[in-house]
Amino acid sequence: MSQENASLSSTPFSTQATGTRPLRIALFGFGTVGSSVARILVESRPEGLELTHVFNRNVDRKRVEWTPTGVVWSEDADAVLASDVDVIVELAGGLDPAGTWVRHALEAGKSVVTANKKLIAYHGVELERLAAAKGGHLKYGAAVAGGIPVIPGIEQGLAGDRIERMQGILNGTCNFILSKMETGAEYANVLATAQAKGYAEADPTEDVGGFDARAKLAILMRLALRVIVDPEEIVPQPITAVTAVDFSYAHDLGCTIRQVARAEDVRGTVAATVGPMLVDKNSPLAWSRGTENMVILTGRYGGDVVFSGHGAGGHPTAVAVVSDLLALAHGSRRVAIPSLPAKIGAEFEVPHYIRFFVKDRPGIVAEITGALAREQINIRAIVQKPGYPADRLPFVVTVEPCKTSALKRALASISQMDCLLEHPLDLQMLE
Amino acid sequence: MSQENASLSSTPFSTQATGTRPLRIALFGFGTVGSSVARILVESRPEGLELTHVFNRNVDRKRVEWTPTGVVWSEDADAVLASDVDVIVELAGGLDPAGTWVRHALEAGKSVVTANKKLIAYHGVELERLAAAKGGHLKYGAAVAGGIPVIPGIEQGLAGDRIERMQGILNGTCNFILSKMETGAEYANVLATAQAKGYAEADPTEDVGGFDARAKLAILMRLALRVIVDPEEIVPQPITAVTAVDFSYAHDLGCTIRQVARAEDVRGTVAATVGPMLVDKNSPLAWSRGTENMVILTGRYGGDVVFSGHGAGGHPTAVAVVSDLLALAHGSRRVAIPSLPAKIGAEFEVPHYIRFFVKDRPGIVAEITGALAREQINIRAIVQKPGYPADRLPFVVTVEPCKTSALKRALASISQMDCLLEHPLDLQMLE
Repeated sequence: MSQENASLSSTPFSTQATGTRPLRIALFGFGTVGSSVARILVESRPEGLELTHVFNRNVDRKRVEWTPTGVVWSEDADAVLASDVDVIVELAGGLDPAGTWVRHALEAGKSVVTANKKLIAYHGVELERLAAAKGGHLKYGAAVAGGIPVIPGIEQGLAGDRIERMQGILNGTCNFILSKMETGAEYANVLATAQAKGYAEADPTEDVGGFDARAKLAILMRLALRVIVDPEEIVPQPITAVTAVDFSYAHDLGCTIRQVARAEDVRGTVAATVGPMLVDKNSPLAWSRGTENMVILTGRYGGDVVFSGHGAGGHPTAVAVVSDLLALAHGSRRVAIPSLPAKIGAEFEVPHYIRFFVKDRPGIVAEITGALAREQINIRAIVQKPGYPADRLPFVVTVEPCKTSALKRALASISQMDCLLEHPLDLQMLE
Repeated sequence: MSQENASLSSTPFSTQATGTRPLRIALFGFGTVGSSVARILVESRPEGLELTHVFNRNVDRKRVEWTPTGVVWSEDADAVLASDVDVIVELAGGLDPAGTWVRHALEAGKSVVTANKKLIAYHGVELERLAAAKGGHLKYGAAVAGGIPVIPGIEQGLAGDRIERMQGILNGTCNFILSKMETGAEYANVLATAQAKGYAEADPTEDVGGFDARAKLAILMRLALRVIVDPEEIVPQPITAVTAVDFSYAHDLGCTIRQVARAEDVRGTVAATVGPMLVDKNSPLAWSRGTENMVILTGRYGGDVVFSGHGAGGHPTAVAVVSDLLALAHGSRRVAIPSLPAKIGAEFEVPHYIRFFVKDRPGIVAEITGALAREQINIRAIVQKPGYPADRLPFVVTVEPCKTSALKRALASISQMDCLLEHPLDLQMLE
């Protein structure tokens, strides 16, 4: 038997195969996701997994009767970290104290499963190194797109391709808001509904500002495009400036509007952005409604692969967590293709939708088109729908693919015009 | 360190990590997929993989200049199997001799990566046992839905859920034909086009008869529903009886027609079928055009997850093969949740679309509806579009959810009617 066959033939670390005791699991956080994880462990009893500890602040407020009697409920994080648990499931979110707990667990040679996109986006590389050095494992399938197996899909099923482009609907709150606005509602009303339903936070900035999607995009870029970028380099555009008027104009252009996170690796230079964009009504991105998430990966060899499903919510996210726990219990290992540090050094050259609100007077179109022409930007269409008041008249210019920087210069100049009531809204058009 | 931590902390078998030589790979079959696999290995040079042998009948006809100089080209299968290769990539298809090669390789402790859906559908369980007994591994991510990572998605990303239902567009040939017919073409013409483009075989029975999709469904049922079924128990309905008239009626019902492979596990009883079905125009299944594949899995906890992409073709299938090879090289192991043998013991209770071709005379509707009433089947709608000749008049009855067996009895009785020009076409309607 060859040396390689020798390693190929080693038995997996499956608890079934080796007869070791189950993985002892500590949940750090018993909110919606934590209690869903516990619920699946109790109801489905996946072999090889045992819930032994629950940590939460004011844990008595959280305690439930339906978990196994042996479970230790604790509000002492250090005590749980010092216990004989094998895996910490970190569901607290945010950089701290979650990051401290994760580091302590990994330093002790334990494994960590987390749904914490922010921690993984900002510190994932360092934490993976720490895990490898100490003999533990770090898994974060729940950090991006909740119950949709995008991360295992990339790591296990698309490792043989070279992914060159990705487009994703990665924030369920924004998708809920925009797909509701598509049916005629105004932003403020839909946001209030989303907050009432628990889809949006009281302060929605993280979601509507694009920061949540940006963190997830950075994680997917590392896995799919194999580039390590600083999430702060990705400048998000908030969805807050999109109005019902824009959906009406988008409709006339055969499009709708979605918050899209996109990244490309074009001959070694990386472009990435997050924001509301016009997407063709026939594109998969337009199918995504409500709090759904979707990821489209374009491989050099395999072409487009689309994943969609529930990107958030207790149960879908818990499925990703339990799947990661099972992968640990079964000895499944990442197919870890190295990623390289990269700068975001390219701009997308795509068509743009630009919507102006003006106080009407003669000569506006001439001035705007003149400013675009000075930046060598070609106009594709000028659309002005009837029925709007002349003292707050919306109209739209779409332009042929151009550099974002050139368009920004043109719009800065246009913004000086006296007739302009607000800064124009500039959205990328995906084709 | 605990016993469990000890196993968790073992290093993966990655060739990078252990410094062993790369996996030595023999391609069995150098057709479209085989040459695409070689192309990716040569162009992308994934670390840890080395193409060393190519087996094909009349291999000189296949030999290319762009593979590494050391590659052994052979038409002697036994010699390649007896060589020091670590992994056989079986791309010949069919049960034999492919099955013999795979068994020989596994018996020798080698691993096998295959795209052979038939072999895996009929003999997968036995071959996986053989692999486990001999210390090798069997991977078949390419056997279902080509470049779409459905199998890794299920095994790695959805292991924590309980999948209760699946619906798939698993045959690109049928999807090409039906999505072309949607635009008005007749079956025979579209089939001829598909044959000219290489999407359909000279004898298209395997595809249009539903046998190909049935094999893939049986594989996905094993992994997703965790039931082992004999593929022969799944009775496929061919797409050949679907006509342009049906697309016209389907359109009026807000639907289109797709070949769907579906299975459900309802309280422990399994239902499964493959055939042309009416799908809602707003359903993801209707989005799928051309040779695309799509799989929708419904989990008890995670809800619907949709995968779509290129289900066939050299490059997409090769991506799945190379990904499986990388998983072997990196020591990634299946999260193998046990599957149990099951009988297909349930029928779908769904609405049906029934299309009749009749020579018109008074009383037809009364007789047909009477026959349905005798089986306690409720009518949902009767649709007769104008503009068809009275001596070959198509009309459609849709019925509320009912047992397939009851409907079959009613249709057998209706088929005796003198006015009926052919056996009615009965299609499930997916809701």
